[in-house]
Amino acid sequence: MLEKVAWMNMLYDFYGQLLTDRQKDLMELYYCHNLSLSEIAGEFKVTRQAVYDTLKRSEQTLSRYESKLGLAAKYKTERNRLACAAAILEECETAQSSDRLQQARKIIEEVLKM
Amino acid sequence: MLEKVAWMNMLYDFYGQLLTDRQKDLMELYYCHNLSLSEIAGEFKVTRQAVYDTLKRSEQTLSRYESKLGLAAKYKTERNRLACAAAILEECETAQSSDRLQQARKIIEEVLKM
Repeated sequence: MLEKVAWMNMLYDFYGQLLTDRQKDLMELYYCHNLSLSEIAGEFKVTRQAVYDTLKRSEQTLSRYESKLGLAAKYKTERNRLACAAAILEECETAQSSDRLQQARKIIEEVLKM
Repeated sequence: MLEKVAWMNMLYDFYGQLLTDRQKDLMELYYCHNLSLSEIAGEFKVTRQAVYDTLKRSEQTLSRYESKLGLAAKYKTERNRLACAAAILEECETAQSSDRLQQARKIIEEVLKM
C-alpha cells in the first residue's frame, strides 16, 4: 500500500498537470496530505463514493500516461544508478581508489546514455 | 533551425507516444529521416500543405505537453550537469584531487534532488 502511494505520488509529480483542477485538488488531499476519503468528501460536500470515483479516474489517467511514456520508471532507474555513483564517490573521497572512481564514472556515463 | 530540429526530436522522444499513428509517421519522416515536405507528400499521396498542417499540429501538441510538464527541459539540464560531473571525474582519475572529487559528488547530489 505504501509503495502504491509513493508510486502515485511520483506519477502525480510527472503527469499531474494533465489532470483537471478538481482531480488535482483531490489527488493532493488524498496522496500528499493523507486525508481520508470521508474527510475529503466532507470538505467538498460530496459523497465518499464521488471522491473515490474521481480518484480512481485520476489514477487511471496518470497510469495511462505512464504506460505510454514510461518516464517515471526511467527516472526511478536513473535515480537509483546515480545514488550508487554518489555512494561510490563518497567512499573514494576517503580511500582515493581509482578503480572505484572509474566505476562511478561508468555509472554516470551509463545514465547519460539512457 | 538545427536547434529547433533537435528540440522537436527531443519532445518527440518524450511525448511522441501521445500522438496518433499518422502524426508519428510524418514526424519521424520529417524530423528523424529528414525527408522534405514534398517527399513525404509523395509518399502518402497527399498535398504538401496537408503534410505541413499535420506536422504543425503535432508540433503544437508536443509543445503543449512540454509547457504543462516541462520534463524535456528538466532532462536537458540534468544531462548537462551529469556531463560536467563525468568530465570532472575523468580528470580526477589521473590527478586524484579530492577537492574536484567532492565537486563531482556535489553535482550528482544536486541532480538527485532535482
